[in-house]
Amino acid sequence: MNFKEIIKLRHDLHSLAEISGREKQTAQKVKQFLEPLRPLHIVENIGGYGLAAIFDSGKSGSTYMFRAELDALPLEEEIDIDYASLNPKVSHKCGHDGHMAILLGLAGIINSRRDLWKGKVILIFQPAEETGTGADLVWSDVKFKLLKPDFVFALHNLPGYPVNSIIIKTGLFCSASQGLVVKLKGRTSHAGHPEQGNSPLPAMVNLITFLQGLKDRVIGYNRSALVTVIHLQLGERAFGTNPGEGQVMITLRAHQQQDLDLMKSAIAQKVRKLAEIYDLSCSLDWVEYFPPVHNDELCVDKVHQAAHQLKLNIITQEQPFAWTEDFSHFTRNIPGVLFGLGAGEDYPPLHHRNYDFPDSLIETGINLWWNIILNGELSSSTEIAR
Amino acid sequence: MNFKEIIKLRHDLHSLAEISGREKQTAQKVKQFLEPLRPLHIVENIGGYGLAAIFDSGKSGSTYMFRAELDALPLEEEIDIDYASLNPKVSHKCGHDGHMAILLGLAGIINSRRDLWKGKVILIFQPAEETGTGADLVWSDVKFKLLKPDFVFALHNLPGYPVNSIIIKTGLFCSASQGLVVKLKGRTSHAGHPEQGNSPLPAMVNLITFLQGLKDRVIGYNRSALVTVIHLQLGERAFGTNPGEGQVMITLRAHQQQDLDLMKSAIAQKVRKLAEIYDLSCSLDWVEYFPPVHNDELCVDKVHQAAHQLKLNIITQEQPFAWTEDFSHFTRNIPGVLFGLGAGEDYPPLHHRNYDFPDSLIETGINLWWNIILNGELSSSTEIAR
Repeated sequence: MNFKEIIKLRHDLHSLAEISGREKQTAQKVKQFLEPLRPLHIVENIGGYGLAAIFDSGKSGSTYMFRAELDALPLEEEIDIDYASLNPKVSHKCGHDGHMAILLGLAGIINSRRDLWKGKVILIFQPAEETGTGADLVWSDVKFKLLKPDFVFALHNLPGYPVNSIIIKTGLFCSASQGLVVKLKGRTSHAGHPEQGNSPLPAMVNLITFLQGLKDRVIGYNRSALVTVIHLQLGERAFGTNPGEGQVMITLRAHQQQDLDLMKSAIAQKVRKLAEIYDLSCSLDWVEYFPPVHNDELCVDKVHQAAHQLKLNIITQEQPFAWTEDFSHFTRNIPGVLFGLGAGEDYPPLHHRNYDFPDSLIETGINLWWNIILNGELSSSTEIAR
Repeated sequence: MNFKEIIKLRHDLHSLAEISGREKQTAQKVKQFLEPLRPLHIVENIGGYGLAAIFDSGKSGSTYMFRAELDALPLEEEIDIDYASLNPKVSHKCGHDGHMAILLGLAGIINSRRDLWKGKVILIFQPAEETGTGADLVWSDVKFKLLKPDFVFALHNLPGYPVNSIIIKTGLFCSASQGLVVKLKGRTSHAGHPEQGNSPLPAMVNLITFLQGLKDRVIGYNRSALVTVIHLQLGERAFGTNPGEGQVMITLRAHQQQDLDLMKSAIAQKVRKLAEIYDLSCSLDWVEYFPPVHNDELCVDKVHQAAHQLKLNIITQEQPFAWTEDFSHFTRNIPGVLFGLGAGEDYPPLHHRNYDFPDSLIETGINLWWNIILNGELSSSTEIAR
C-alpha cells in the first residue's frame, strides 16, 4: 500500500472542492481512480452525483457498504497550502476529502488482495451530506435499491478527541433534527402609518418567546431536546416601509423521534393560533429532516474488534452527540454504524477556517475498514476483545 | 400652451423610469427639452444626476426655485399602459414623472412670456428623493451654492384628497425622521451547541421590546413620535448554524427635532447596555435623516393667492403629516413651501402598484407655479384672499 499516493489523491480532491449537489468533477475524479481497480460495476448519478463501486470477491458472503461524502462547504479557503481549493468560496472544511481518500485507498487493497476476503463490498460516495439531502436522495434512488447492502459503515473525523482514537456508542449515536421555515404575511404600509399596515413583528416576538420555553413546556427536565432559532428576516432595508412579511427559521433537535414530534405539533399549533390572533397568513415548511443515527450492536462490535487489532484507543461515548448526520437515512433501514475517528484534541473544529483533514488518519481509516472486511461475517459469536 | 405635448412628455419620462441615483437618461431627456427654451444656464450633475435650469428675466427681482424629482421606485410596472416603464422592476409610482412634466411645461411659458415676469427662476430636478439622499447631496454640492435661490417651492401630488385641491399648512408640514442600523455581533456555533456560541437573539428581542415602549417612556402622551422596526436580520438560512450576527433597523419619526434627539440618545444608551449584558459587540449607524419640513408663512400665502386666482379648493391641514420629504434640506436653510396637490379621493395611494400620475394635475401645477411667478415679489403686503 502506497499511502503517499493516497495522501496525494486526498490533496487533489481537496483542491477540486465542490459544494453540495454540484460534486461533478469530484465524482469524476473518484471514478477515474476506481476504474483500473476492477470493480464489478461503477454505478453513477445516484441521488445526484453519487457514485457506488461494487467489488465482488467471487465468494459467497455478506455485502458491506462503506460510505464517504463528495461535498465541500461554501467557505473560503483561508489556509496557505499548496493544494488549496481552486474554487472561490468553496473548500473542504469537514474532511470529506479525507473520508474519500480512505475509501479509495481501501479500494486498492480490496482489488489486490481478493484472495483474502469474502462476499461483496460497496464503496459509496454520497453527494450533499452538508445540506442533509444527499443520503435521502441516494436511499430513494432506484439505482441504490438494486445494491442491497447487508451492513453499512461510516466514520467521521472528530477534532477534540485524541488522534486516531475511536469514538463510538451502541444505540443512539447522534440526534434527530428537523428544520422549519415559518412565514408570516401581513400587509406593508408607509413607515409613518403602521396603523394602515400589519407588520408580523409582534407575532414573531411572541413566537420566539414561545420557542425559548418550548423544551421545558413539552419535553421536560430529563430528556434532551433543543430549539435553535437559526434565522430571522423581517422586511427589507427600506426605511420608509413598515414591513408586511417575516420569516422565522428554527432547527429542532432531540434524541427521541417522539420528542421531535411533540415539539413539531406544539409549534404548528402555536403558529396557526398566532396567525389568527394577529390576522396574518402563515405557512410552515418542514425541511432538512435528519433521523437519529442508531448504531447496530453487532456492527459496533465489528468496529471494536478491528480497533483492538490495530491497538487503537476506544472512547465509548456516554451521551449521544448533539449533531446530526444524514447517514441515518441508511441506518434506519439497514444495520450499520457511524463512529468518530479522533483528529486531535487541540485540532481546529470542523467547519473552522483553519481546519484541514489530518493526513495521519488516512492509514488508520483504511486499516480499520480492511480489518472489518478481513474479519468476515458479522455474527454474535465474533470474538470481541475490548 | 400645448398641454397635450406636456402630457406626451410625462408619458415619455414615465417609460424611462430610473431608480434613485441612476437617473442619467431621465436627466438627459429633461436637458434636451429645456435647451431650446433659452435658459441662462443649465447646470448638470448637481448632487448626482441633478440638473438645474436658470432663467433670467433680465429685470431685477427675487430668485424663485421650483423643485421636481428625477427618480422612480424599485417596483415592477404592473398596469397596462402604452407608455409603461421600459426598465424591469422600476417604475414611476410616486408621480415624479408628473412633477417633472409640470416644471417643463412651466419652462415653456417662462421662456415665451419673458415680458411678464421679473427676477430669476430656477427649475431644479433633484435626484434620489425616494432614498432621502438627493436633496442633501444637491444642497451640499458647490454647484448648488452658486445658485442662491431666495425662495423654494415644491408640490407633491396626494391621493386621498379631492382632485386639484391644495393641501397646505403653515409651519411644520411633515415630520422629521431618522433611520438607524443596529448591528449586534456575538459568535456562531453549531446549531446543536448554542452553549459554544453567542447568538444575538435575546438582545434583539430585548431591544425590540424596549423600542415598542420607547415613545411612551421618553416622549409622553401628547406629543407625536413613532418607532417603526422596518427590518430584522439574524443569521442565514443554514439549519446547522447557531447565528452569530444580527441586525435591527428602525425608523424614528417625530414632529419635533428635540423628540427625535431624545429617542436617539435613549436607544444608543440601551443598545450599548444590551451589548455589555449579552457580551456582544455592537454598532449604531444613523442613516437617511429627514429634517422636518417647515413652511414659511409668506411662501404659504403666495400659494394661497395663486390657488385663489385659479379657484382651487384649499384644504388647510391641521396636523403635520407623518411622512417625510427631503425637500426639508432646502426649507431648513431657505424660506419655502411644500404642499399637496390632491390626486383624487379614491385614487390609488403613492407607491401602490395601480398608481399612475393623473395627467389632469399637469395644467393645474403649471398654472399654480406660473401665477406665483406672475404675482411677483413676496412680501407681507401681498394681497391675499383666502
